[in-house]
Amino acid sequence: MTKAVVKLADGRELIYYGDSAAAASAFPDTRDLRPVELSSQVRYDPMLGEWVIIASHRQDRTYQPLEGECPLCPSAPGHLTEIPAPGYDVAVFENRFPSLVPAPAGAATVGGLLAARPGVGRCEVVCFSQDHAASFADLTPAQAGTVMIAWADRSVELGALPGVEQVFCFENRGPEIGTTLSHPHGQIYAYPFVAPRTARMLATCGEYRTQTGRNLFDDMLAAERSDGERVVCAGEHWTAFVPHAARWPYEVHIYPARRVADLSGLDPAESAEFCEIYLDLLRRFDRLFDAPAPYVSGWHQAPTRAGRADFALHLELFTIRRAPGKLKYLAGSESGVGAFTNDIEPEAAASTLRKLG
Amino acid sequence: MTKAVVKLADGRELIYYGDSAAAASAFPDTRDLRPVELSSQVRYDPMLGEWVIIASHRQDRTYQPLEGECPLCPSAPGHLTEIPAPGYDVAVFENRFPSLVPAPAGAATVGGLLAARPGVGRCEVVCFSQDHAASFADLTPAQAGTVMIAWADRSVELGALPGVEQVFCFENRGPEIGTTLSHPHGQIYAYPFVAPRTARMLATCGEYRTQTGRNLFDDMLAAERSDGERVVCAGEHWTAFVPHAARWPYEVHIYPARRVADLSGLDPAESAEFCEIYLDLLRRFDRLFDAPAPYVSGWHQAPTRAGRADFALHLELFTIRRAPGKLKYLAGSESGVGAFTNDIEPEAAASTLRKLG
Repeated sequence: MTKAVVKLADGRELIYYGDSAAAASAFPDTRDLRPVELSSQVRYDPMLGEWVIIASHRQDRTYQPLEGECPLCPSAPGHLTEIPAPGYDVAVFENRFPSLVPAPAGAATVGGLLAARPGVGRCEVVCFSQDHAASFADLTPAQAGTVMIAWADRSVELGALPGVEQVFCFENRGPEIGTTLSHPHGQIYAYPFVAPRTARMLATCGEYRTQTGRNLFDDMLAAERSDGERVVCAGEHWTAFVPHAARWPYEVHIYPARRVADLSGLDPAESAEFCEIYLDLLRRFDRLFDAPAPYVSGWHQAPTRAGRADFALHLELFTIRRAPGKLKYLAGSESGVGAFTNDIEPEAAASTLRKLG
Repeated sequence: MTKAVVKLADGRELIYYGDSAAAASAFPDTRDLRPVELSSQVRYDPMLGEWVIIASHRQDRTYQPLEGECPLCPSAPGHLTEIPAPGYDVAVFENRFPSLVPAPAGAATVGGLLAARPGVGRCEVVCFSQDHAASFADLTPAQAGTVMIAWADRSVELGALPGVEQVFCFENRGPEIGTTLSHPHGQIYAYPFVAPRTARMLATCGEYRTQTGRNLFDDMLAAERSDGERVVCAGEHWTAFVPHAARWPYEVHIYPARRVADLSGLDPAESAEFCEIYLDLLRRFDRLFDAPAPYVSGWHQAPTRAGRADFALHLELFTIRRAPGKLKYLAGSESGVGAFTNDIEPEAAASTLRKLG
């Protein structure tokens, strides 16, 4: 792995990955950039037993900059961006307006029913390509492999930071899902808590272990493979399927055959095959509708401490589009009481995605 | 309470509430309306321990009809709608494209890791006013009182249906949240399961009872009232506050001082005061931005069987708008791992809402 670390003008870290990393790291950030005053707090909701991040400084963050002002493009004369180099393969940097920060200002720890503590953590931006007009689906398998290396490396580094309990690498793609920058990029959140949905997966997994002596992820993957009706594609190492109880119109989960806790547990052959399968799936997603699919994609990894023996690394990918021009919204039933309604039968979604291969 | 029940042309029920109910019920539905073939299934997600509704027939449902074709307006010559009467106070009818149905076609019950059963239940539409251009905030307290009567009555009736475990009355307001009809209306879902978010509230409440011998809702309301910094307004019977760990930019929970399990437990004085406070809050929400606030509002009631001794009826109201022209999206962090980031400090949100009174 080729990797080079530099500091941006305001002290944030920027990490280049790929063959051009060393050359890229020679270019200093010459912007006059003041450090942003960062406050972040996490508060406990006793009714749901979940932590919520309160990050009020983010209201002023960059919002859909004009074309030619993209902060994720390589820097060029007269256009200095977050990335000082004139070119890069993959670049990762600390978000200038993060939800979680290594040393949050002015947040005390209090207990009781109004519990709160500092929002310790880190938020990073992952630029998948220097090509502004590309999307992840346009990457070559080798380029996607460099992103895989970056995700795994960042997960290890961020997971080792004091107070970090979980690292989540994800991509929000498309303005329909709220993405403010069109340059191909994802994000990494290092949380100071086990995220609510992950905590529930670990709880159900623990109950299943107690009841059956078996691993829930293993058995669920075996059940989906055995049933087969919702499998979209599979390789030697990976299976991609629409889950039986899919919440989203088109939702695909991608599991390795060999259960590992997180990205660092994958071997090179597994990583390489994942890239092929993932690129294939993203291209199928873009053929679903008359326009590129807005999607959310995220790597579910074991927390840094809890549940490492049971958790199974996997990726969850879904689009919020249910038909051309129609989106699935999380309205009353979903946001209010957590009851999802899916208008597309999972078997039909899998069949459609199989045909788009 | 004045109430009259009629049948629509395809057999669905329509219930009028208010002084005009008897007169309205004299008008028959003269449309040539074929019954819709309805299939619905609920499937269990073993990873999260939650039921998901799969209702594939809904893809063809009415989607933003043209002006003058609103199906929720009173019928007029040449414009026959879902409501045959030429006028009404409040009208409730069975949704023509429901997610849950009393007798779903062709859904077997299966167990194991791919568990599913028929999506038994009922989905109703609540028309708050015959005035197409109004919103809930435009109602008089007396009109809102009629809606309260309808909500309470429907909750009792739907809660008594075979297989129904929970009744949720809610309103999605605004195209930003996916509302397809602008006529002022809400919905009622009668679920064949305890909804995931409600189940978690009951679980935390049970743990709190075990640990302290006390009720979590009572203590949380007392803590918010005692702290006071996030209280927006309060009356003799009700307190409206931004919760300490609010997930949404502007989020208000409204609790009665006297804990009751559901809407049927409120006395007339409590219902009347709720209407005053709720209308006041909705009007404040509409003054937050340069345009009407898109919001989700929902009555959290005890399930029909589980947790009735502990649950506290309350309403949760939030807008997805965080600034003029900017929405809060549920993207990777929220949809992927359930970790919410709120960009507005709850104390600041409460202060803003207090000033808008």
